[in-house]
Amino acid sequence: MPKKNLLYAQSGGVTPVINATACGLIEAARANKDKLGKVYAGKDGILGILREELIDTSKESKSDIAALRHTPGGAFGSCRFKLKGLDESRAEYERLIEVFKAHNIGYFFYNGGGDSADTAYKVSQIGKNLGFPVQCIGVPKTIDNDLPITDTCPGFGTVAKYVAVSIMEASYDVESMASSSTRVFVLEVMGRHAGWIAAAGGLAQREKGDPPHIILFPELALDEEALLKAVDKAVKTYGYCSIVVSEGVKDQSGKFLADSGRRDAFGHAQLGGVAPVIAGMISDKLGYKNHWAVSDYLQRSARHIASKTDVEQAYAMGKAAVDLAIAGKSGVMPIIVRTADKPYKWEVGEADLAKVANREKMMPRSFISSNGFGITAAARRYLEPLIQGEDYPPYGKDGLPMYVRMKKVMVAKKLGPFEG
Amino acid sequence: MPKKNLLYAQSGGVTPVINATACGLIEAARANKDKLGKVYAGKDGILGILREELIDTSKESKSDIAALRHTPGGAFGSCRFKLKGLDESRAEYERLIEVFKAHNIGYFFYNGGGDSADTAYKVSQIGKNLGFPVQCIGVPKTIDNDLPITDTCPGFGTVAKYVAVSIMEASYDVESMASSSTRVFVLEVMGRHAGWIAAAGGLAQREKGDPPHIILFPELALDEEALLKAVDKAVKTYGYCSIVVSEGVKDQSGKFLADSGRRDAFGHAQLGGVAPVIAGMISDKLGYKNHWAVSDYLQRSARHIASKTDVEQAYAMGKAAVDLAIAGKSGVMPIIVRTADKPYKWEVGEADLAKVANREKMMPRSFISSNGFGITAAARRYLEPLIQGEDYPPYGKDGLPMYVRMKKVMVAKKLGPFEG
Repeated sequence: MPKKNLLYAQSGGVTPVINATACGLIEAARANKDKLGKVYAGKDGILGILREELIDTSKESKSDIAALRHTPGGAFGSCRFKLKGLDESRAEYERLIEVFKAHNIGYFFYNGGGDSADTAYKVSQIGKNLGFPVQCIGVPKTIDNDLPITDTCPGFGTVAKYVAVSIMEASYDVESMASSSTRVFVLEVMGRHAGWIAAAGGLAQREKGDPPHIILFPELALDEEALLKAVDKAVKTYGYCSIVVSEGVKDQSGKFLADSGRRDAFGHAQLGGVAPVIAGMISDKLGYKNHWAVSDYLQRSARHIASKTDVEQAYAMGKAAVDLAIAGKSGVMPIIVRTADKPYKWEVGEADLAKVANREKMMPRSFISSNGFGITAAARRYLEPLIQGEDYPPYGKDGLPMYVRMKKVMVAKKLGPFEG
Repeated sequence: MPKKNLLYAQSGGVTPVINATACGLIEAARANKDKLGKVYAGKDGILGILREELIDTSKESKSDIAALRHTPGGAFGSCRFKLKGLDESRAEYERLIEVFKAHNIGYFFYNGGGDSADTAYKVSQIGKNLGFPVQCIGVPKTIDNDLPITDTCPGFGTVAKYVAVSIMEASYDVESMASSSTRVFVLEVMGRHAGWIAAAGGLAQREKGDPPHIILFPELALDEEALLKAVDKAVKTYGYCSIVVSEGVKDQSGKFLADSGRRDAFGHAQLGGVAPVIAGMISDKLGYKNHWAVSDYLQRSARHIASKTDVEQAYAMGKAAVDLAIAGKSGVMPIIVRTADKPYKWEVGEADLAKVANREKMMPRSFISSNGFGITAAARRYLEPLIQGEDYPPYGKDGLPMYVRMKKVMVAKKLGPFEG
């Protein structure tokens, strides 16, 4: 039987370590050249596959592939594009199979979150139906940490480390000047639906009284009065108040605070930014001078402060995906299985895509302290291992990281354009 | 002659490496115990001296003092408090001398920017007039890089590195998803009066076409039309547009864009935030999806990504300040003298405080490219050495930096409260 090629695609919001997964996958495939063909990658994710825009990763040098391990962003491009149900999006699914056939694809690896797991699962089904079975492997990735079954999602650990280190550092700054300057500092972090990332900020609080003094979670509607009371207490007790706020915090009516209809002087609607809303509220009601930061994409791309644990897991997921393919599996996803908290031990496991798809892992209420403004010991036990270890990228003589860009040599097209 | 004590104070906005200067100073003083007494530190800067709140640094362990080298914030506290002229603030100056007398202070080290240099200079004068001469040494510090004579200011190099790395990383993220998602990313950085920090973002542009594609400097009033044209061109050429904007950018009438009177849904005035203004303007006029980040204090405290050059210079300034004191100097400041660009070579020099005080070093217009949106080769030649090398803090088993807090054992008071 002639060797089949592999097709890899990155999906959805990228992470600081999704390329480490690509690295693990491509290196594992190259190490199994006796069984496996080439690794192609969809340019800009599944959109590239639909358009038959496939990158031939065999044209990338060994050292460039190795450098993916320490490069943020999505090296082959990603996209926000969700295939719908088999009936609604039948043309797209059929096109995928057509592209697979044309390029002798035997293995499809979809590196993403819950939606991608769903898509990979459906592709595995339709392949069979159309008489071109393809082994479909989901590969976990999401900074939101919202995939079920797996202990964590590659990407989350590094964002968590960035957030914990950042709020710790900024708090040292605020603390040293609070007596005559800024009293309240607010850091906005991602996590629209679940407070995993905001909770990670709580790791900076090694001892009682350490910052952050307040965390605002998307799981709990904002109680303005309780917040103001807690801020005032922190300022009076510690001299200042350090706050981490999730972008997804809602008011009592369920509306995102970030969407509170702010307009600038030009009359433009303001997008996002819950930190200035919280900071403004506090200054207005309590009179404390504030500063605020919105880390936005900085947190999602901060490869320079990567968690070693996270990088290792991301790489392991890529390698494990190839192992599953070689083992003849389809409709599955490699996962991280925690076997011990302290010291943290984990191993690679396997989950059915059907069980991963379309199920969001929410943060347990037991991770939020009873007053709603902090994390519990259970949260710390879960989170702390995920930010352990450092994994620095190499730096050039110019003082900047040596991140890599792929050459992106395209595979010659064999089909007409997609009219879907 | 009995040994005189040293008094050290941190002034103004802290930096990621001001404690490295404190470390250099205290270690140098401890190494010269035959000539020098104890090192006291003003709690919260000069305010602590006026209040006779002096920290006895001899009570801090050797390892804690060593850890100052890698700890952000201001370990002894800083303040925003400017002494005025000798006539206007005579009571304060006299109080300082009174405190110096009471605690046998022979050397006063003021670690700050231009205002602090001015204060240190005035203290040296009034000490003589009041018959209690104190050797006053300014010690340079400011992320704004606006002190004259010295090649650079400790603190700036690390902020510059943080900004360059951050815009590079976020741009990798944006680039990988631009075809179906965010097209424009805006990062706001500090520098209200001079564009040094914004210019540092330009270091990420290793080759033509690399991000950032646009830098907005406080030196140039915003030309909205030219900006929109440049953004559109970048998106059409590279698929996305990456922007660094200084918080100090003004409109054509000279008003800060950040002060453009935005209000949130609660009617609270919004403080700061020029990034959302720029992002909103672009989305509104060009329709591109945007994201924006405001790094605020994160950039000023990011010790985790410190420039090795900066840390070494910060430490050297502390040590040199003690050397100057031992040499009998007063009214001077150690400075960094550049002797070669590539490879960068520098040595410690000395400047008169009178020449440093109240003179701001503006960024030369020749550092800004002719279209106003980038940096020139001259800027790169100057800036690049300052971010060279990495100097990571140690991390604990919990994955977080091992920053130190001083014990802050206070010196017993000998005077009554200050009624100034």
